[in-house]
Amino acid sequence: MQFPPTVLPPSPALDAALQHKIDRKTKPVGALGRLEGLALQLGRIQQSLTPRLHAPQVLVFAGDHGIADEGVSAYPQDVTWQMVMNFLAGGAAVNVLARTLGLTVQVVDAGVCHDFGELPGLIDAKVAHGTANSALCPAMSLAQARIAISRGHALALAHAAQGCNVLAFGEMGIANTSAASLLLHKLAGVPLAQAVGRGTGLDDAGLQHKLTVLERAAARTGALDDPLQALCEYGGFEIAMMAGAMLGAAQSRMLLLVDGFIACSAMLVATRMAPAVLDYAVFAHRSAESGHAAMLAALGAEPLLALDLRLGEGTGAVLAWPLVQAAAAFLNDMASFEAAGVAG
Amino acid sequence: MQFPPTVLPPSPALDAALQHKIDRKTKPVGALGRLEGLALQLGRIQQSLTPRLHAPQVLVFAGDHGIADEGVSAYPQDVTWQMVMNFLAGGAAVNVLARTLGLTVQVVDAGVCHDFGELPGLIDAKVAHGTANSALCPAMSLAQARIAISRGHALALAHAAQGCNVLAFGEMGIANTSAASLLLHKLAGVPLAQAVGRGTGLDDAGLQHKLTVLERAAARTGALDDPLQALCEYGGFEIAMMAGAMLGAAQSRMLLLVDGFIACSAMLVATRMAPAVLDYAVFAHRSAESGHAAMLAALGAEPLLALDLRLGEGTGAVLAWPLVQAAAAFLNDMASFEAAGVAG
Repeated sequence: MQFPPTVLPPSPALDAALQHKIDRKTKPVGALGRLEGLALQLGRIQQSLTPRLHAPQVLVFAGDHGIADEGVSAYPQDVTWQMVMNFLAGGAAVNVLARTLGLTVQVVDAGVCHDFGELPGLIDAKVAHGTANSALCPAMSLAQARIAISRGHALALAHAAQGCNVLAFGEMGIANTSAASLLLHKLAGVPLAQAVGRGTGLDDAGLQHKLTVLERAAARTGALDDPLQALCEYGGFEIAMMAGAMLGAAQSRMLLLVDGFIACSAMLVATRMAPAVLDYAVFAHRSAESGHAAMLAALGAEPLLALDLRLGEGTGAVLAWPLVQAAAAFLNDMASFEAAGVAG
Repeated sequence: MQFPPTVLPPSPALDAALQHKIDRKTKPVGALGRLEGLALQLGRIQQSLTPRLHAPQVLVFAGDHGIADEGVSAYPQDVTWQMVMNFLAGGAAVNVLARTLGLTVQVVDAGVCHDFGELPGLIDAKVAHGTANSALCPAMSLAQARIAISRGHALALAHAAQGCNVLAFGEMGIANTSAASLLLHKLAGVPLAQAVGRGTGLDDAGLQHKLTVLERAAARTGALDDPLQALCEYGGFEIAMMAGAMLGAAQSRMLLLVDGFIACSAMLVATRMAPAVLDYAVFAHRSAESGHAAMLAALGAEPLLALDLRLGEGTGAVLAWPLVQAAAAFLNDMASFEAAGVAG
């Protein structure tokens, strides 16, 4: 891939025709609310008055984080690889929700601290066995960050080549809310106290300890506005690879369904490399993780759902998928006032 | 039917076992947010640790309102029957969304001011050709209100007998936001200025005129805390029939998916007849109609979605359906920590 990759904004050429089509449907103007903006976005991305959704795919990027050594998570690091096994067995929340709502799930080992060997269904894109402890030193080298981004980018292009035009982004990685909080702090200037949260369920003392650790990690570096450098300092591999996949998906004119706090941190990185990636993104939900509201504000994002989820994996993205289907369906299939003989 | 019908609250006997099952799934406790409460509610309603959803059905109740004569809607009254034809042809928003998300739609003529004759797919439960103008006189007689409620009640029982255990409630009726606002004002004491809204899209002058008309209608009667009397005074037939169907659905231990402002006004009536109906209800969304927030507050309801919809028809209820499916699916199919070998 070219670095940083170029993402062109979709042309507004069809916007007026799309809006006219939306407004002539048998409903008061604007009455389908957020679905109308979604329909316009879909038509614009696909440059079509009849956008179609093909082979929606969830990619779950998994990686470990050296900063887990500092006790910043309520769960031990082994849970990352154990949950990867759970994904592969189809028993995790994202599997169950995706099966129910019609998406397929693929799991990507971006940098889990475990040797899986060859496992059916697992995409081996491992950069290393977890990042280094960013409280002490950079999480990864520049070369590793570029490898992670490139592998994600290539993965998105491969899915596009197979006819998929909707990618949903999820993740798994014990301590990855720490990495996401640090990226939010450094790249968007959000104070750490506001960027940090309970993750998988820290109590008050655990949250205070996490904040202290993150303050130490943040103090290691000065201001950072280069997204690649921020990734190197704070990780993680799954975030870097997800950012690369988002860039590749936007280049391929796919719709990006962005999950929660961690997926948004990857989007923050991606937008700092190529701002137009935002034009392809649908933000699925506002999670219960306390930094997510600030993250969404930094991205200028208005998520579709607010269900107090705080699980990651892509679960929020999967739950937003029916709304995307609904938007495409009303644009394509609903009658106009003229066709239905209804007074407009 | 017995009048008022008795609705028993579901037993809490399984609550502890349901909560334990939810908490042992491979996720932090509470991490699926609103889905967890939904799963508990489903299990409680069905008195089962493995609740199943069968034949989800949208009922769209249509009726006309004499108060439309006062110019309280942006659309002419003929739009009610024209939209019924659109529903029957499958071209309206609720049809398209329901087809996309796996529900079937039935249209019920509760009191449309039009002679349809026999039409395939239309349930003829017409009480009269529209209500009387409630700005001048009672909208319907006591006998009519009882007929409407009884027909709705019987309809829900018929669906239950056919194996359906999820009913979604939608409506169509030009000027029915006026009836709903008056019910909210009289039954819950919400000031009219707060209970009234733009409906299908009134401008500022139209909204002011609507408020003046509703003030006149409200002044016709004193305090009203009897739901049957409130229905008689302000209508409408579709609201009364929907309330009856909600009562029948709750008696049949179905899950009720309640749409927007009008459907909630029927729920308000139903709860004043049998408070336990609330235990069976899922409130789908907070609409853009300005009185809906006060209506939800009066019901103590926390809706799942907030998508700025203001269309009615059951569109919001249909969009919330995948969340109900997701809740049942995670409860039934997700792995436990023990089964998956994940550290809990």
